[in-house]
This record gives sequence, structure tokens and C-alpha cells, in this order.
Amino acid sequence: MIDTTTALELVLLHGSMSTKVLEVDLKDGLDYVLAKDVISEIDMPPFRQSAMDGYALHIGDDVTYSMVGEVKAGDNNNPTLHKGEAVRIFTGAPVPVTANTVVMQEKVTVDGNKISIEESPKENTNIRLQGEQIKVGGVAINKGTTIKGVHIGFLASLGVTKITVCEKPSIAIVVTGNELVSPGDKLSYGEIYESNGAMLTAVLKELGYKNTSVVTIKDDYDKTKKVLKDTLGKHDVVIVTGGVSVGDYDFVGKAINAIGVQEIFYKVKQKPGKPLFFGKKEGTSIFGLPGNPAAALSCFYIYVYPLLKKYEGAEHMNLPAISLPLLFDYTVKGTQAQFLKARIEGAGVTILGGQSSAMVRAFGDANALVCLPRNSAEIKKGQNVKTILLPTK
Amino acid sequence: MIDTTTALELVLLHGSMSTKVLEVDLKDGLDYVLAKDVISEIDMPPFRQSAMDGYALHIGDDVTYSMVGEVKAGDNNNPTLHKGEAVRIFTGAPVPVTANTVVMQEKVTVDGNKISIEESPKENTNIRLQGEQIKVGGVAINKGTTIKGVHIGFLASLGVTKITVCEKPSIAIVVTGNELVSPGDKLSYGEIYESNGAMLTAVLKELGYKNTSVVTIKDDYDKTKKVLKDTLGKHDVVIVTGGVSVGDYDFVGKAINAIGVQEIFYKVKQKPGKPLFFGKKEGTSIFGLPGNPAAALSCFYIYVYPLLKKYEGAEHMNLPAISLPLLFDYTVKGTQAQFLKARIEGAGVTILGGQSSAMVRAFGDANALVCLPRNSAEIKKGQNVKTILLPTK
Repeated sequence: MIDTTTALELVLLHGSMSTKVLEVDLKDGLDYVLAKDVISEIDMPPFRQSAMDGYALHIGDDVTYSMVGEVKAGDNNNPTLHKGEAVRIFTGAPVPVTANTVVMQEKVTVDGNKISIEESPKENTNIRLQGEQIKVGGVAINKGTTIKGVHIGFLASLGVTKITVCEKPSIAIVVTGNELVSPGDKLSYGEIYESNGAMLTAVLKELGYKNTSVVTIKDDYDKTKKVLKDTLGKHDVVIVTGGVSVGDYDFVGKAINAIGVQEIFYKVKQKPGKPLFFGKKEGTSIFGLPGNPAAALSCFYIYVYPLLKKYEGAEHMNLPAISLPLLFDYTVKGTQAQFLKARIEGAGVTILGGQSSAMVRAFGDANALVCLPRNSAEIKKGQNVKTILLPTK
Repeated sequence: MIDTTTALELVLLHGSMSTKVLEVDLKDGLDYVLAKDVISEIDMPPFRQSAMDGYALHIGDDVTYSMVGEVKAGDNNNPTLHKGEAVRIFTGAPVPVTANTVVMQEKVTVDGNKISIEESPKENTNIRLQGEQIKVGGVAINKGTTIKGVHIGFLASLGVTKITVCEKPSIAIVVTGNELVSPGDKLSYGEIYESNGAMLTAVLKELGYKNTSVVTIKDDYDKTKKVLKDTLGKHDVVIVTGGVSVGDYDFVGKAINAIGVQEIFYKVKQKPGKPLFFGKKEGTSIFGLPGNPAAALSCFYIYVYPLLKKYEGAEHMNLPAISLPLLFDYTVKGTQAQFLKARIEGAGVTILGGQSSAMVRAFGDANALVCLPRNSAEIKKGQNVKTILLPTK
């Protein structure tokens, strides 16, 4: 049995990387990882831009200026100003080459063709310099960045219309168990509704992974072997939930061995998710997650998410982690490393009730996972704990 | 000019609420807000469930038990155990009515048809009680909850296949300015690429709002009036960027008045986004955001996001805010309330460089907005500041 740090290292060591890149329209780029740096083809701003509605001046010796024109946003005129001359200018308009400052209109008194300013102006005020945000040839966004909405805005401002991204993995979710019934069907004694497939599909979709499918298998060795082999051949990542344990009816574990999956690790010193399995067959990674939904989801965020991000070549593979004070005392059950559903609010983090592996409900209120190392025993209020930020909207 | 608190209160007071609900397949429910409580139609678990692979016992006086059967997950048999009898049982299987505890297999020695246990067992161990997560008739998820992936998992486990949600708003993004050129076209002197439309569309999509369209208008009064009137009639929320300021060529402000939009407020004591406009016409809300992308985006998260959530009847309308220590000293420029792009990392929050309204780039690195009240002046390292969590993945 290995520890959580080793387990994550092994996942990131053995996880494959996509070799395919694709070019997508910028507007469709959300959630993709950039396969190469985006280089700016323009200076941004592309010209000296007025940051204010006001007056552009060629600074003179006096506080009075003669008006010699006007420049609006979108104008391409470039009036010549001599010392002591001014033009009316608006936010976003190009500042004439011969102007050396902009004064906001609130500080100016207009009298016919003359203006006077409250105080003597300083050079280069209220002007956004050409290339101040980025210069032509500069790296706008680095390779490995996962594209967010704001990146799309920034790239659009540079005139970018297409970006080169890594192909996303094709992911199969394999749910196993004779006890599983599809929602909508009638439940008999001993049966439960299958929910891991729906949950992982939805969580993956939230994260931008839409190339997913759910495969259901009953507890039958030959069928399990056939379906697993077939699924591994067709997908980049296979997530099995349930069935990988010591039970006599664990057909999944036996089938995984029989079809030649290389075991990277099985069992991790953690709670939940002790019987976590990770293996590889050719380029395909296979996870065996616990069948209990809450345990499966914790393992997904801690181990599967980084693998997916590695596959895409992302710079940041783990979910972001911060250190926050616990708002209430917490007594740890057992000696294992723990991943606990938690809520960041107020001035710290609270570990939620309902931590049992089967209880997915508490995850609905969680926006974080608190990670406690082995043998944590008693954590006092105010003590800082490692807190993984779950995706939020 | 009003303060930020009043502005947000007015937005939430005047924002309309959707009157339409729709029933969607659970799998398509992501990001919708529940229009009514989801009531569980089953107990969860639906029966007494073994939490372990092991042995179910009818506790006897001795540590030795006679084996009388086996129950696997998915089995619907219910063997009768007398005192001192045991059945083999697996995780998720129904615990026979006549069994009163489950012992994990690691603590059991098997000898033919007899098993012996290390220590005398306690009642009701390793059993998940029927209805432990939720009982039939109980509220599974409250009205007003924005559906996340994990909720879909939880509802699927209860057999839910459809949910009733509020219709999402139809949103128009109106971009104005003669200086704007579409990405892909050639930029002439004085022109910039239009990016607010692409940015807000992408940010809205990230948040699950896909019913959006971008309308571009040049600085022409009659056209602006016609297009705005038309757009207001067709959408629930209209977001105008740029043009709502004191500039002589502010056709948007004039058009908004002319077509009978009721001004709720114009100008807020804040930086960025001082010239923020909010108004209403019939059921449609209209925002005038700054033209600068970074300023527009800050105002979007602080004011537009809560309006959209109110429209959908969400319980939590604002982005979550927490209190975190600043990791570096920060000197505030000016006396206005500030919304500053920031990054939560380590054991607190850091205000990022590149806070200028035009600089959308820093937003790419931000995962939070730090909110400072008016007259904050100097904030020292270690001092707690209000930190709004931006959506993250």
C-alpha cells in the first residue's frame, strides 16, 4: 500500500499525453489547453490611446490652450499640435503624435476656441502607451494554459480568431454491479440506482470534458473481460467504478489482470478510496475508483483530474490548493490520510458533516476538500489545513 | 453617485425573475436552478446495506458462527439467521433482516462451514441503515439550488430522471464604438479589435448561460436607438459595453433615455466601473458596463452575475465571498471602493499587478476579486480582506 503523494506522482509519471493538436475557433476554445504559445501579432494598445474624455495637449508655458481639432474613438486623423495647442479627445481615441498629455474634461474650462486648465499638466498623463499590455511578437498566453472566458476576451482583443489546442481525451466510465438499476426503472429489494455514470459524466462536462460515454457491466467474468478489453482499445482514459476490491465476486480486478493491464498501483493509504487502482494498457490509463459515489468523486478530483490535465499538456495539473484556518475543531477518525468534503466560508474552512463514503449529498454543499496527512488525530480551530479548491461557479 | 452596496441592492431589488419553468432531463440539468424542491421517492439506501465485504451475523454468545448462506450485491434473497449463525456478505448487499451486525472479512477466520471472529462483535456495525442519507418524502435538493455535477449524481441515486428548473435568461451583449473592428479583419490607425462581445459570451458560457447574442452598433444616434429598442424587446437582459459616459458622442446614453428605459442608477463610487448604468424597461434589465474589458468584467461579476442568478430564482445570488489575509502590503490608489484582480494561493490572497481598467490580461491569472471599501489607503500584509471567489475549474 502506497501513500497519497506517491500515488499522485505515479499517476502523473505514467499518464499519457495527447499527441494530437487541433485548431479551433477562438470562440469554441473554452476549457481547451493551449498546445503552443499564442504570439501577439499586434501591439496592444495598437496606438497611443486616450484613457479619458478630455483634451490632448502639446504642453505650453501657459494654462490656456488654443483648440485646433477633435479626435473621437475610431478616428484615424492625426492633427498636428504646436506648443500651447489642444484637441478635444475621447476615451479610446488615438492621441495625436504631437500631443504629449491628456487632461480630463472635468479639469478644463472651455471658452469659445480657448480652454484653460486648473493646474499645469504633467507629460504622458491619461495616455495608454502603445504596446503597454503586450508588444507585437510577445507571448500573449503560454502553452499549457487552460482557456477561460477572460482569455478568449484577451485573445480577441489581439485579433486572434483561431487557437491551437491539445485534443481532449476520450473517456469511458465503466459502472459495474448486479445491484445497479437505471434511474426510471423499478427498484427491487437489494437493488440501487446507478448514479456514478451520471455523476462522473456531469462532473466531467462541468470541467469541459464532453467526449465521454458510460458502459454498464453486470458481475459476469467473461462479459467483463470482453467489455473492458473493447473499452480500453477505444478510449484514452477508462474510469471503472466499483468492483475493484477483495470481494469474491470482483470480476473487474480479475478481468483487468487477464487482459494484460499493467498495474501501477493498487490500494492507497487514504480515506476514502483505499482500494484505488491505477493501471495502463498501451496508451490508455485505467482507474478503478470505489463504488461509493462520494469516495469515487474524491478520488476523481485528487487523481483523475490531474491525469486528464496531463493528457492535455496543462501547466497546472492539480486543482489549486491553499492553506486555510479550520473554523471548528475536528477529530480525525483513523490514522489514514484523509480527503474531507469542506466548505470555505467566512474566514476559513469548515469540514462538513456526512463524510461517509456513500454520502454524496455533502458534496453538494462542498466547495473544497480538506487534505489531512496520516495520523492527524485532533485538529484545533485556527490551525491551517491544506484545502483543495473544487471547481465553482 | 451611489455606493457599491446600494448599487447591488438596487440591482437585486429591480431585477426581474423568470416566470417560466421547464422540465429537463436530469443529465441536461447542469447549471440550471431548481424551480422546486426535489422530493425523494425512495429511502436511500433503500434497504439495510452492508458497508463491507465480510460476514453478517445474528450475534451469539460465542465467537464461532455457523455459515447458513451468502448474499451478494444485487441479490434479493433474505436468509433467516438464528442466534450464532452467519452469512457471507459483500459490500452493497442487503443485510438479512435477522442479522444484527456485519464483521469485516479481515477479522474472520474461516474453517469449513464455521467462522470465528477475533473479538465479540458490536450490534449494527458496518451496516448502512435504510434511509440513512435520505428518507422517502424528504427534500433531496432545495428549490433555488444551482445544479452541479454532484447533484446530478445524488439525484440519479434517488432514481430521479427529470427536474423542474427555471428558464435561463436570454442575454444580448451590445458592443458600441466606431473604433471596433472584428478579429480577423485588418486594423487601421485608431482602431482596436472588438473583444467584449467574445469575452462576455465566453464568460457567460462558462457559467452555463448559452442563450446569448452579440449586437454591434456604430456611433450613430438613430441606429443606436433603433437597435437598442429592438434588442430590449427581444431579451431578458441587455448588457451594453462602452458608450455610456459623458462623452459628446455617447449615443447610447441618449438612446437609452429616448426609448424610455427607466434609469435605476448611473455612476457608482467604485474603481473600476464608475460610469456603471443600470436600468429597466418592462421586464428587461439593461446594464451599461465600461468599455474597457477588465472594468467590464469586474462589473459583470459584481452586478450582472447576481442579476442573472436572481432571474433564475437562485438561493445564492452573489459569488461566494470569504475573508482572507493579504500576503503583501497594498497601497490603494484613490478613495473609491475598489475591486482588484487577485489570486488566492498559499495561505492568503495577493492583489495582482496590471489593475488598469484596460488590462484584461491580469484577469487570466486571477481567481478572486479583492473588495476594498472606500478610503482604504494602506492595507498591511496579514490584514484580512473581503475576497470574492471567481468561477474556477
